[in-house]
Amino acid sequence: MKSDKKIRVHFKSNHANPDSFPPTIEGENVFAMTKERFDKAITNYPDLIHKIEPIFDWDLDNFYESMKTAEVLVCWDFPTENLSEIAPNLKWIHIIGAGVEHLCPMDWVPENVSVVNNRGVHSAKAGEFGLMSVLMLHTHIPEIVRNQQSNHWESLYSSPIVGKTLLVIGVGNIGYAAAQKCKLLGMNVIGASRHGKDLDDIDQMVTQDELDEVLPLADYIFMSTPNTKETYNLLDKRRQSLMKPGVGIINVGRAATMDYDALVDNLNSGHIKAAIIDVFDPEPLPSDSKLWTTPNLMVMPHISADDGDTYIPLTLDLVMMNMRRYIAHEGLNNLVNPELGY
Amino acid sequence: MKSDKKIRVHFKSNHANPDSFPPTIEGENVFAMTKERFDKAITNYPDLIHKIEPIFDWDLDNFYESMKTAEVLVCWDFPTENLSEIAPNLKWIHIIGAGVEHLCPMDWVPENVSVVNNRGVHSAKAGEFGLMSVLMLHTHIPEIVRNQQSNHWESLYSSPIVGKTLLVIGVGNIGYAAAQKCKLLGMNVIGASRHGKDLDDIDQMVTQDELDEVLPLADYIFMSTPNTKETYNLLDKRRQSLMKPGVGIINVGRAATMDYDALVDNLNSGHIKAAIIDVFDPEPLPSDSKLWTTPNLMVMPHISADDGDTYIPLTLDLVMMNMRRYIAHEGLNNLVNPELGY
Repeated sequence: MKSDKKIRVHFKSNHANPDSFPPTIEGENVFAMTKERFDKAITNYPDLIHKIEPIFDWDLDNFYESMKTAEVLVCWDFPTENLSEIAPNLKWIHIIGAGVEHLCPMDWVPENVSVVNNRGVHSAKAGEFGLMSVLMLHTHIPEIVRNQQSNHWESLYSSPIVGKTLLVIGVGNIGYAAAQKCKLLGMNVIGASRHGKDLDDIDQMVTQDELDEVLPLADYIFMSTPNTKETYNLLDKRRQSLMKPGVGIINVGRAATMDYDALVDNLNSGHIKAAIIDVFDPEPLPSDSKLWTTPNLMVMPHISADDGDTYIPLTLDLVMMNMRRYIAHEGLNNLVNPELGY
Repeated sequence: MKSDKKIRVHFKSNHANPDSFPPTIEGENVFAMTKERFDKAITNYPDLIHKIEPIFDWDLDNFYESMKTAEVLVCWDFPTENLSEIAPNLKWIHIIGAGVEHLCPMDWVPENVSVVNNRGVHSAKAGEFGLMSVLMLHTHIPEIVRNQQSNHWESLYSSPIVGKTLLVIGVGNIGYAAAQKCKLLGMNVIGASRHGKDLDDIDQMVTQDELDEVLPLADYIFMSTPNTKETYNLLDKRRQSLMKPGVGIINVGRAATMDYDALVDNLNSGHIKAAIIDVFDPEPLPSDSKLWTTPNLMVMPHISADDGDTYIPLTLDLVMMNMRRYIAHEGLNNLVNPELGY
């Protein structure tokens, strides 16, 4: 990188496409990386104003031409084939999501290119969504919603949530934010992660290998894992059968981590009392899916962690902070491990 | 009161009755004051074991006979006529609810009889219900629920709630608990009460006379007033028109404090974005009520503050603590002012 040359940053936004991301026009607006948003973001980074040359592009409109000289790519997805040839100057790629399974396996990453993700951007909203969802399950909201559909009054009382046990599977930024919010209400919080390392505010941490031992203890389960080979179908039929009868489940991670056919069976039998599900495959959930009408399953349109007002401003903050580190020859934050896939 | 005589306490529970309270069998179980629950409660008050003679009765089965000698009556409702003649030894009445409008006007209270209510018992659950409801409105849950009914996916994103303004109307135990919980998430909280006295954790307190000035400021409104002559129809059509377009409303107080016909009109027009309503008149809400099917109105079956597991245990704690004060000739806690009606 020569100091007299500006760093070319290619921002690739996506137009709404039901078969891709974002699937809806609301999503397109939330995730658009526009000149207007960039100009606003960079006012907080005056040192970078004359060091960056941003290119704002949509889909693949000017992708190949622009990538001939771009040093940085900020995007959700892109064609990964022959990346070294297409983008000979590329040094880092910022994926504007937390999960990057759509780019896995990451055998396409050139040796001299770093991949970073958006972790941290989701945590404020996701923590509140977790808190809200656990309270909704505890307060029988899925059943109350169903009763309303038949004009049926049933006094479904519930206690304060203090002392109930929440199991958070996948304690990254999102899971940890939800755990901390629920801890504020006096819940007993168990966390499960790959390493099982202790964390403040979490009463007990276990490794993924110990998951079977804690599944029967949880009144509520909050799933917030990425989709990796280690988490694929993690909550399969067998593990669902280990859960406490009457458990409530939330999934904000990825659909592939849970057997939704088994979930439907368990909701119909009552073994699982209710579920709030925010992630599906594919999205949008097809209108003929049985999930829409499964009793006590609330379908959320993937809104648990994406903040309409601040998602891209916070994303651009991450890009700018990493840009400072890049210019200073420091290691980038939020690096994705290509082997682990997160 | 002679020291060698036990204090006769008449516990009047009600069988479920759709025209009375509790209206449902679930409610009957929650609110039943049984010998079993009393025996469990009194283990924490060993000093009282030999000083109380409890009578556990249902409806009016043995009411008149028992009231001939009872010093204390614990109940939701009872025949108030000629109370001095019916219950010549009666010294205090503990109403096992927060609102006592079903006993108003309180011109029937004999001069030497005190009336106390259950305030405080509801606050833990009510605070959590308030927090949950505000988050649900902010996260577009009423619209998402409606979309699910037509298998419709719409990406309704929302920001973290920090900085949004909550107006709590009626800052008693219930409203204050909700305010404090929402404050934990960084909301700006305005409270409106009769006196407008400052309270910790509430950014701004106003009197009921100043309500019109703060109605346009609120993103969310939490109604938690008793039904008194001062609060009757408080949120009428005119005051609803003063609210910020797109406001979300919660009512956990009493139905009579709000014009529900105007609410339905405002929900249909979109002036009010969504509402979570827990109180109706009558209850249960009749199955032909238009409220069941009004868009973006979530009908809650009066469950915001009544805790299935601990309501009566906590109530009995209040009774026991007041019994100690009564025996010590101290003033009772939770006195109801017969003129104010709460």
